[in-house]
Amino acid sequence: MREEHRLTELSSGVRVVTESMDSVRSAALGFWIGTGSGFEDADRAGLSHLLEHMLFRGTARYESLEIDQIFDGMGAEINAGTGKETTSVYSRVLDVHLERAFDVMADMVWRPKIADEDLSQEREIVLEEIAMYEDDPQDRVFDVLGEATFGDHPLGRAIIGTREVVAGTPAAEIRDFHAARYTTGNVVVAAAGSIDHDRIVELVQQTLGDTVRPGGALEPLAVPGGAVARRRFLAKETEQYHVALGAPGIARDDERRFALRVLDNVLGGTSSSRLFQEVREQRGLAYSVYSFTGSYAGTGQVGLYLGTRPDNVKTALQVVGTELDKLLADGITAEELDRSKENVKGRVVLALESTTARMNRLGSSVLADMPILTVDDVVERIDAVTLDDVAALARELYAPERLSAAGIGGDETVYRTALEAVSPTLAEAA
Amino acid sequence: MREEHRLTELSSGVRVVTESMDSVRSAALGFWIGTGSGFEDADRAGLSHLLEHMLFRGTARYESLEIDQIFDGMGAEINAGTGKETTSVYSRVLDVHLERAFDVMADMVWRPKIADEDLSQEREIVLEEIAMYEDDPQDRVFDVLGEATFGDHPLGRAIIGTREVVAGTPAAEIRDFHAARYTTGNVVVAAAGSIDHDRIVELVQQTLGDTVRPGGALEPLAVPGGAVARRRFLAKETEQYHVALGAPGIARDDERRFALRVLDNVLGGTSSSRLFQEVREQRGLAYSVYSFTGSYAGTGQVGLYLGTRPDNVKTALQVVGTELDKLLADGITAEELDRSKENVKGRVVLALESTTARMNRLGSSVLADMPILTVDDVVERIDAVTLDDVAALARELYAPERLSAAGIGGDETVYRTALEAVSPTLAEAA
Repeated sequence: MREEHRLTELSSGVRVVTESMDSVRSAALGFWIGTGSGFEDADRAGLSHLLEHMLFRGTARYESLEIDQIFDGMGAEINAGTGKETTSVYSRVLDVHLERAFDVMADMVWRPKIADEDLSQEREIVLEEIAMYEDDPQDRVFDVLGEATFGDHPLGRAIIGTREVVAGTPAAEIRDFHAARYTTGNVVVAAAGSIDHDRIVELVQQTLGDTVRPGGALEPLAVPGGAVARRRFLAKETEQYHVALGAPGIARDDERRFALRVLDNVLGGTSSSRLFQEVREQRGLAYSVYSFTGSYAGTGQVGLYLGTRPDNVKTALQVVGTELDKLLADGITAEELDRSKENVKGRVVLALESTTARMNRLGSSVLADMPILTVDDVVERIDAVTLDDVAALARELYAPERLSAAGIGGDETVYRTALEAVSPTLAEAA
Repeated sequence: MREEHRLTELSSGVRVVTESMDSVRSAALGFWIGTGSGFEDADRAGLSHLLEHMLFRGTARYESLEIDQIFDGMGAEINAGTGKETTSVYSRVLDVHLERAFDVMADMVWRPKIADEDLSQEREIVLEEIAMYEDDPQDRVFDVLGEATFGDHPLGRAIIGTREVVAGTPAAEIRDFHAARYTTGNVVVAAAGSIDHDRIVELVQQTLGDTVRPGGALEPLAVPGGAVARRRFLAKETEQYHVALGAPGIARDDERRFALRVLDNVLGGTSSSRLFQEVREQRGLAYSVYSFTGSYAGTGQVGLYLGTRPDNVKTALQVVGTELDKLLADGITAEELDRSKENVKGRVVLALESTTARMNRLGSSVLADMPILTVDDVVERIDAVTLDDVAALARELYAPERLSAAGIGGDETVYRTALEAVSPTLAEAA
């Protein structure tokens, strides 16, 4: 499948990146904005997310209800997401609807109303969202882990922010926040599918108008200090203990990211991975058990999660401890290396058929000033990963003294005692 | 995009249904088996789901770990799902891997080992799954609603079944269950994407071998009696009250299903819907609020969900009550009818680009003996829906005296009192 992107930087600083696909009739379209919880002080914690909600609350030319009606009428969903460093507004539409969708989304991004009366409703909606999410321990434990891993650094805070900021920030302040962050140099427009690059560029020019403030990307985050092992626990009446371990990882432009992808695959990223096999398949100690990675500017995160019943917490964490020890001592096998490489390559090729997956890759890469790699580029980098690369990375990142822990469950003692099997540091940590 | 399926019934009774798509390099492949919780007595509640798990636990020719390794090595995920009436095992792979994937999946479906020692691990995994899922009130409230709506009928039970059955059913009984249900007449093989129909038929013949038991589809479910309004509540310390209302709906072959799709869209299926606008956007009373429908042989389900903080339960349910009253009294508007039709049509066309969506439609339709409609067929049926059709259906299905209710939250009195706004029957119900 053809794979050729085009990138244009307008005089305003907005970057437009697209990939045209002949075989589809749909287009995925996204606006990517370089703001998220990682760029927020404690007294602004949650403003990127609250602002993302307010984009849907009416613009210079479209009422809130009109926006919903227009997209529903096209059979398309318009969605948005806020992350640690990125906010995105995106949709997938039939190509005949692309210009209409673009027009509405551009107005949402550049000219949201952010009116007082709408804000008071939207605060309540976000407060409901916080409550909903606190009711799900599988979600919540990751925010507990964030704080354990990154402490007071903004990366350690929940993306959704705090109730105080959500409830109390005046509309004027959110309008200022928008003006300062949704600047032309901090927005990327990405599209993939049945689209024409030059026409997208024209649409960006047209819809941008004169209302947009100059300014570039936000200052990069101060990188948090080295790994500090912290232990956190939230007591709650639950059926399972939800436990997550983590540590700072590597930055998104770190060349070792390909080795980390292989490593994470082997540790707990796939069904044939060590954690899945040893914790779940061999011993029946969990239904959900996996490892994960994240990467930001200047730092990243590695970690793992499992949910298990009270009687199994200790044994499950013993198995995790043993697997981490083995990984650090011996790395991975040649067979695991090969299979993991094939896995990554297969996934990359399969993802090519999705307009949304392509658009996401384009938008996030350009916003982060990362090169857009072709499948061949990725395959080459993945193929170059060696056993030594993986072993060295494992020793560096998953060393027991670097690991922080987060738990939700009934009894902190059960959790604390079980953690001894992973790391004495952790069991003793503050 | 071309849209032309081929259907072959083999002499064994296995049906093979495929759609070839020129524009892709991947294939979605699924085995659809006509068994699920709706076909289970109380003392077998959860066996379809437990058996689905056991398919992954090794077959005549593949060990459990080998299955995981083979799919991981292709960069493909193999998954399975159990529903009320259907079990499916499916994957999406690059076309070069199709035959290999087929070979493994066919062995899983026709010749799973179901060995004692594997079963004892898998029981624990499913018990962990039950515990995990009970920790998430947003999921759990739907099983509470199922029992409220369908009472003792198997459709009223959780798909995952009961701890007793999962923990106690001997391996021999599960092997018998497999023999009785995974019969050739009760299995459909579906594929979409870069595939050749005749080759898939050949593969089915080859991999079927001689080991397969004759037998057709299971007896249709006895349809549960008329709607009984029941009120159920689960006390739990939560941030939100999670409330779901529901009633029996219409069968999957009911011609009014197109009108119901339009109706559900307008009530709470989209962002411009009445519930989303009135509960969330206008009043900030929920983050998550929506309506839904389900359809089975001989019956179906309609319902709605919302999650809201304790102070808002009463007001939120008042708004729901008012919206249901309005819907029953006046039906929907011409504008809503038009927009909803466009929405359904747009979605149907957008789904055509997904090999997985096509495969799912083919497999589930053929298994249920439903016609496979083209996009043009669907558009025609949707276009034929009138305001009167929708109004009549609304009056029939959402009448207050038919509604059952399920709630999870801190205080039953808060919940019960709030339900008065929807229906006095419900507030007084047993």
